[in-house]
Amino acid sequence: MAKIGIIGSAGRMGQAIADVLEGSEHSFAGGADHGDAVGALAAKSDALVDFSAPGALAGNLQAAREAGIPILIGTTGLEDEHHRAIDEAAEAIPVLHTGNTSLGVNVLCHLIHRAAETLGEDWDIEIVEMHHRHKVDAPSGTALLMGMAAAEGRGIALDDNSERGRDGMTGERAQGAIGFASLRGGTVAGDHSAIFAGEQERITLSHSAENRSIFARGAVRGAAWLIGREAGRYTMNDVLGLG
Amino acid sequence: MAKIGIIGSAGRMGQAIADVLEGSEHSFAGGADHGDAVGALAAKSDALVDFSAPGALAGNLQAAREAGIPILIGTTGLEDEHHRAIDEAAEAIPVLHTGNTSLGVNVLCHLIHRAAETLGEDWDIEIVEMHHRHKVDAPSGTALLMGMAAAEGRGIALDDNSERGRDGMTGERAQGAIGFASLRGGTVAGDHSAIFAGEQERITLSHSAENRSIFARGAVRGAAWLIGREAGRYTMNDVLGLG
Amino acid sequence: MAKIGIIGSAGRMGQAIADVLEGSEHSFAGGADHGDAVGALAAKSDALVDFSAPGALAGNLQAAREAGIPILIGTTGLEDEHHRAIDEAAEAIPVLHTGNTSLGVNVLCHLIHRAAETLGEDWDIEIVEMHHRHKVDAPSGTALLMGMAAAEGRGIALDDNSERGRDGMTGERAQGAIGFASLRGGTVAGDHSAIFAGEQERITLSHSAENRSIFARGAVRGAAWLIGREAGRYTMNDVLGLG
Amino acid sequence: MAKIGIIGSAGRMGQAIADVLEGSEHSFAGGADHGDAVGALAAKSDALVDFSAPGALAGNLQAAREAGIPILIGTTGLEDEHHRAIDEAAEAIPVLHTGNTSLGVNVLCHLIHRAAETLGEDWDIEIVEMHHRHKVDAPSGTALLMGMAAAEGRGIALDDNSERGRDGMTGERAQGAIGFASLRGGTVAGDHSAIFAGEQERITLSHSAENRSIFARGAVRGAAWLIGREAGRYTMNDVLGLG
Repeated sequence: MAKIGIIGSAGRMGQAIADVLEGSEHSFAGGADHGDAVGALAAKSDALVDFSAPGALAGNLQAAREAGIPILIGTTGLEDEHHRAIDEAAEAIPVLHTGNTSLGVNVLCHLIHRAAETLGEDWDIEIVEMHHRHKVDAPSGTALLMGMAAAEGRGIALDDNSERGRDGMTGERAQGAIGFASLRGGTVAGDHSAIFAGEQERITLSHSAENRSIFARGAVRGAAWLIGREAGRYTMNDVLGLG
Repeated sequence: MAKIGIIGSAGRMGQAIADVLEGSEHSFAGGADHGDAVGALAAKSDALVDFSAPGALAGNLQAAREAGIPILIGTTGLEDEHHRAIDEAAEAIPVLHTGNTSLGVNVLCHLIHRAAETLGEDWDIEIVEMHHRHKVDAPSGTALLMGMAAAEGRGIALDDNSERGRDGMTGERAQGAIGFASLRGGTVAGDHSAIFAGEQERITLSHSAENRSIFARGAVRGAAWLIGREAGRYTMNDVLGLG
Repeated sequence: MAKIGIIGSAGRMGQAIADVLEGSEHSFAGGADHGDAVGALAAKSDALVDFSAPGALAGNLQAAREAGIPILIGTTGLEDEHHRAIDEAAEAIPVLHTGNTSLGVNVLCHLIHRAAETLGEDWDIEIVEMHHRHKVDAPSGTALLMGMAAAEGRGIALDDNSERGRDGMTGERAQGAIGFASLRGGTVAGDHSAIFAGEQERITLSHSAENRSIFARGAVRGAAWLIGREAGRYTMNDVLGLG
Repeated sequence: MAKIGIIGSAGRMGQAIADVLEGSEHSFAGGADHGDAVGALAAKSDALVDFSAPGALAGNLQAAREAGIPILIGTTGLEDEHHRAIDEAAEAIPVLHTGNTSLGVNVLCHLIHRAAETLGEDWDIEIVEMHHRHKVDAPSGTALLMGMAAAEGRGIALDDNSERGRDGMTGERAQGAIGFASLRGGTVAGDHSAIFAGEQERITLSHSAENRSIFARGAVRGAAWLIGREAGRYTMNDVLGLG
């Protein structure tokens, strides 16, 4: 039973994490939304979860180091300097940064990597996702994570091998390409599929989220797992025991 | 048991139709691939099926009129002048032109029309299709037929309400839009879905073709159905008894 | 803007309906959970929604008649005597009884009926559903509604033509049968599909519920629709304008 | 380019394998359907493929040993004595026996094993399959292979943890159970899905066969892979390089 402190507690993810903590074996140590409060929060927490903003990252890492507790970072939009700051903090404390805290999505990415590694280039890979009507970008970040997993499994660079937004006279599909398609509508929380289409057969690996609570649940599990680990930089795969 | 003559018998669809006739209650009256032979073919057939080319249409209609037999036309790429020629021939003989002879696809389009008519504009419509890696255009003709059925059901113009090839910062989905997405890979004969995404619920209407024989089978059924009808222009909906 | 009274307001559906009313153009007139309170509730409501129990039905109908307001009944487990009581009340006020208040499910059943009517007996019909791990019966009531719609469309009796719980040496599928299969797991709110499997092609008509709020939303829409109608017995198809 | 001999060449799988060989880099060394002819066939082949019958197995293994060539066995219905005969032959030559030669199905089983190993017991596992209307048994052999992979990944015995043929008052799903459901209809060559249903999220791993040629193609690939290997008993996982 660990005390988890939430940085960015006023945001949508912060509130979802607080909700999950309420019904879990762990407890909510408190929330903080700006610099000064983070140090005080760290002092009474066993681990921190950070869903705030890139600009706050350096201060949050510092607070965790001073308190000697681990920190899980789910903030998106990080750049090289942020990753360097994470690496530096990871010399002193356990740090985990991830683009997606859902257990299911991480397991799916692992399976996609494995499938892409095993199936030859004559199995065409397509990634299709559906999200609610208010989403403003395409493909989703999770779809890109899945494409990255497929590209790594196949040993190619995703950027050089993507087919996105097919429309009109596209010509034949490029050998080795990874295709992306995005559907939008209703209130869909997030459906993703990776399709491996071979000669007369198809393998489809899918994930479906009923609502956004799965991200909060995975963040709590990740933060709790970090407590008591050696200093270092971890991934959700470590949490899940995936090689 | 009718004798069906095939115009364009050397093409892929022509051969598929001959294969279907072999295993059916009807018989293959013969094939023709160019002008002169069509008249001779018409004379010994109970109905003609035309999967040749727009340029041959006028001659084919003329041959059917002279023989006084019906003709089913599956040729794609017709323009206004061809449709006028069809209308003119339909004063003398039964004529059926269709963009898709599959029974299943036609029934699906009917259901999509009905669903779009019933469900309000707050149900977002998305059409997604998958075809083999060699297909050079997107979306598929069948996907566009499905979109047309949805637009008609809703009483809007498809051209003004399509969202195709989403990629990058798309912004929120436009109210009332009909979205299209295309997947390509492997040897997939043709999968199509129309998704109606509402508030916390989704209806999905799908068709899956195992191979291209379904188009040949539908063409034979349509041609046989035309025999003995009054002169006029028919659709696959008439064949299927769909209002 | 109508005032809707809820009988059975303490139950799960009753609470869900109150939640939906809060965010809607209509208002919550109040709740009642036992006999005496229902008359008082009826007096201040424009319409009643009843998700209580069969034993309370007669009293609830009586209260609605006395107040001269319509009533929508979603109670399950009704027997012949209850239906007779509904018919009798329907001579004086508008009454609607339904086994499923979701708009999407009702539209889907309509489409299944239409498809079964159109596609011949050589299209095999299968119904498959998935629900959360706590559901104790199979197939779901909604799956049976869908099977009923298919049987009616085909003009056969469902009871004489069902194949349920296939396991072991089943022999070939019976011609004309309607098959049912039930999946259970996780927290799935309710997924249903009707599959029409023909020669080399398949049509699948599916509904997916993200959560149970769709039943509450449909109940509110149905109750509001009843206000101002002539006395009579209505169905959700009437609400949806489905012939 | 290897010469592949087919035992059971008159059967449906034997013919499918001969068809695949025709279009491949390998060649058809000849077919044999009864004892004496097998020795002669082995003498002119680089590898044998056996899709005949359990009763012929001993003789076929003997013929392969005498010729010093590998043999791939796809025969079903083997008993303990047959497996002992295979083990014995595997001391002298490379032997591979498999219940399913499709590359895709074997990869899918590997992924299911991995997913079941990683996801805890709170992810419910369901296996659902669809086959054509003439199939006489349920669940399919491939569905059982998938269930076996899931059970092994989870470290439980499949026999003690299966829920099959749900119908009527089933009660809640048993913790840790693996469910099976079978759909039948049309001409479906074989669709299989393993669903992992967790808290608010679902992972689905699916395989879809367009026709039966995939089994023949996998058999050819397996047989060719065996040529030049050390004596021993192999599996399709070895062919695919799956740990």
